[in-house]
Amino acid sequence: MSKSIKLAILGLGTVGTGVLRLLEDNLAELKRRSGHDIIITEVGTRRQRDDINPSIQQNSDLMAIAASDNVDIVIEVMGGQTVAKDVIIHAIKQGKHVVTANKALLAEHGNEIFALAEKHHVHVAYEAAVAGGIPIIKVLREALAANNIEWLTGIINGTGNFIMTEMRDKGRDFDDVLHEAQALGYAEADPTFDVEGIDAAHKLALLASIAFGIPLQFDKVYCEGITDITLQDVTYAEELGYRIKHLGFAVRRYDTANGDSLDMPSLAQTATGIELRVHPTLIPENALLANVNGVKNAVLVNSHPLGQTLYYGDGAGAGATASAVMADVMDLIRVLTATNHGHHVPHLAFMPDALADTPILAIDHIVTGYYLRLQADDTPGVLAGVTGILSEAGINIDAILQKPVHQKGQVPIIILTLPVVESQMNVAINKIEALAAIHSKVVRIRLHDLT
Amino acid sequence: MSKSIKLAILGLGTVGTGVLRLLEDNLAELKRRSGHDIIITEVGTRRQRDDINPSIQQNSDLMAIAASDNVDIVIEVMGGQTVAKDVIIHAIKQGKHVVTANKALLAEHGNEIFALAEKHHVHVAYEAAVAGGIPIIKVLREALAANNIEWLTGIINGTGNFIMTEMRDKGRDFDDVLHEAQALGYAEADPTFDVEGIDAAHKLALLASIAFGIPLQFDKVYCEGITDITLQDVTYAEELGYRIKHLGFAVRRYDTANGDSLDMPSLAQTATGIELRVHPTLIPENALLANVNGVKNAVLVNSHPLGQTLYYGDGAGAGATASAVMADVMDLIRVLTATNHGHHVPHLAFMPDALADTPILAIDHIVTGYYLRLQADDTPGVLAGVTGILSEAGINIDAILQKPVHQKGQVPIIILTLPVVESQMNVAINKIEALAAIHSKVVRIRLHDLT
Repeated sequence: MSKSIKLAILGLGTVGTGVLRLLEDNLAELKRRSGHDIIITEVGTRRQRDDINPSIQQNSDLMAIAASDNVDIVIEVMGGQTVAKDVIIHAIKQGKHVVTANKALLAEHGNEIFALAEKHHVHVAYEAAVAGGIPIIKVLREALAANNIEWLTGIINGTGNFIMTEMRDKGRDFDDVLHEAQALGYAEADPTFDVEGIDAAHKLALLASIAFGIPLQFDKVYCEGITDITLQDVTYAEELGYRIKHLGFAVRRYDTANGDSLDMPSLAQTATGIELRVHPTLIPENALLANVNGVKNAVLVNSHPLGQTLYYGDGAGAGATASAVMADVMDLIRVLTATNHGHHVPHLAFMPDALADTPILAIDHIVTGYYLRLQADDTPGVLAGVTGILSEAGINIDAILQKPVHQKGQVPIIILTLPVVESQMNVAINKIEALAAIHSKVVRIRLHDLT
Repeated sequence: MSKSIKLAILGLGTVGTGVLRLLEDNLAELKRRSGHDIIITEVGTRRQRDDINPSIQQNSDLMAIAASDNVDIVIEVMGGQTVAKDVIIHAIKQGKHVVTANKALLAEHGNEIFALAEKHHVHVAYEAAVAGGIPIIKVLREALAANNIEWLTGIINGTGNFIMTEMRDKGRDFDDVLHEAQALGYAEADPTFDVEGIDAAHKLALLASIAFGIPLQFDKVYCEGITDITLQDVTYAEELGYRIKHLGFAVRRYDTANGDSLDMPSLAQTATGIELRVHPTLIPENALLANVNGVKNAVLVNSHPLGQTLYYGDGAGAGATASAVMADVMDLIRVLTATNHGHHVPHLAFMPDALADTPILAIDHIVTGYYLRLQADDTPGVLAGVTGILSEAGINIDAILQKPVHQKGQVPIIILTLPVVESQMNVAINKIEALAAIHSKVVRIRLHDLT
């Protein structure tokens, strides 16, 4: 029994226009897959547009659209956390299903929004909120549902990855590449959300919640951007066989029987909980993630018993985002054409009453290897002093690279360490910086072998 | 309202044991995700086993298990196409949902089995049948449901990829590596299904069906294995910046408005239809697929408007396969706990009455680049003769590598060509082999830039 599913699109920017375009291009395939007709009945737009099919009603009153009898599913692609939030809440209260790409809104207000949706027996779908067209939400909520997810990491901000890629490939400076990214439209005029890691942190909060079954906790995510990464560090990392990528990490430690946690030495069992962090990271040049370049995204998931799987593709753009939005619509069509409303994947992958209160770890408790770069006097005994401090702190050295003198008798020393608890490393770095022969802050970048 | 979902596992080999183990390890997480209890009530096994929890009934009468009132979902992990088929059909007729990992059975008898399932309002789920734990079935049926899938390619046989990887990494011969693969348990005593490409062809038939909405057509898949790949070819490919991988390809040509087909020169619009083929393929060494090594699998999908996405992970093994089997069970739990049976993804992603009769192309009509290797007399004019033939056939040369003389005055010549219709290449190769200065068959391997 074929029905007509009625959609409203709120916001006609890049993504909204992409959804309109997708329906024009692929409607026949969508009908073949769903068995139902799909029509856009209303669009929410501030000013009347003359490039929209006249059968679609244009309306600047978004609250009216959210309550319209002529709408089954409300697609929110405006962004922002004020009007978007009000409209989504209104739609839910009117019994409408909602599809949104709004990662900031969900990361910061998702617990409230999802609870309201449960109460009103509607669904809020958000595949497009993380990693664009890569179906990482469906993968974590459904495809990997039988697994115990141990950790995940990924490149989940395309702008940042574009900058890191250009620096390495072309030997360009951060500022230089950032200006190009802004000119190309990859980065906003105010690039803070991208280069400071906030956008990645929003997405990581969503991923961690559905991986581990915990409430959204954006405020607990440790967030470090790429603004301090210099070309010099990129080059040295390269000489050592590594690339620097801005990664998000969600890691569960020690609450599973299998305990296959990330880079975890047995001596460092300092705390039990979940690591949530985004920061620049060295990874081996032959790791798949090291070869995810430009504006591409990828997420690597380690779960038991599946092992490592990786998901790669476009993390942004009209087409990729529209693909994810409409995948959610296709799922909701199955809900709308069934005769009850109980039959769905929980919003956060786990049942709302089964969410755990596992603590989020502070950054001091996380364990990684490190890339350290020191500016030292070219005098005897300096290296012995530094390695002595590391040894005393129980930190094992994996590799040392001593570069030729390049200015005023000072010599750069690069050290790679094995995994160590961050608080231990902080102590050692303080001692190293206190040495008479060391003249500037120690540069440090975390390092993972991803094994 | 929490229910107890009752499972039967038919077959207690590697995969069946993996499913038992997964439930032991992850039951708490499964309950948290589904909201329901999951119990194994019966296992089908030829002889009584004493390492199985005594609460589980062991039974050698598989038909009785398939009809048992004490079973909601039948999990078939025996393999084979005789008993397995009979039992699945019996289970369907008794109104049981079925989960199977049996790629050969579905590729060859899936149309019949799925039609019967539709008739009896039950589902036959098969995530584990392709690429092990990589959720490529869910991705193609659900996550990419809004896209027009243009082509997909992938490494979908782990044994073959292990052999190709070892040959390249360690300079070992095919036979040598095959024997090791057999000793390690990666390859069967009779390795035909793996090394001749039949296993990959089974999987490709399934992927193509759900990508394009066509019936299963295993008998139309062009199938070439890796038994003719020599270390010499692996080495030359490497010198030219390529790696040889055994890939499956499903390519839709010219029936979309967007027409972004694989490596398709505009002059070569010889036929409309779908390419289904598995064969060794050169791909650039920096392509992600070129870096999928050992027994790993990966599938690259190009769709509109999403673009390229890639899915990577373990393509076999107890844990990966059990992960996929139980993901299907988790989906079926939503069906079982709903109050109707209409609410599901179609078996082949498209509605049964919407399957298209798009033709499958013969291998002559496909278009790829080529790697050619010739043994030629070291005399003047040979290269001119060869390139003249190619030019006459309208085939463009991308690169030529002439190696030093290595035996009896003969010289190997390696040529890479731009994409060309296979039938054209066949004509050119026949002419080249007829030249007096050419002494053996021309070695040819297809080549894709994956752009």
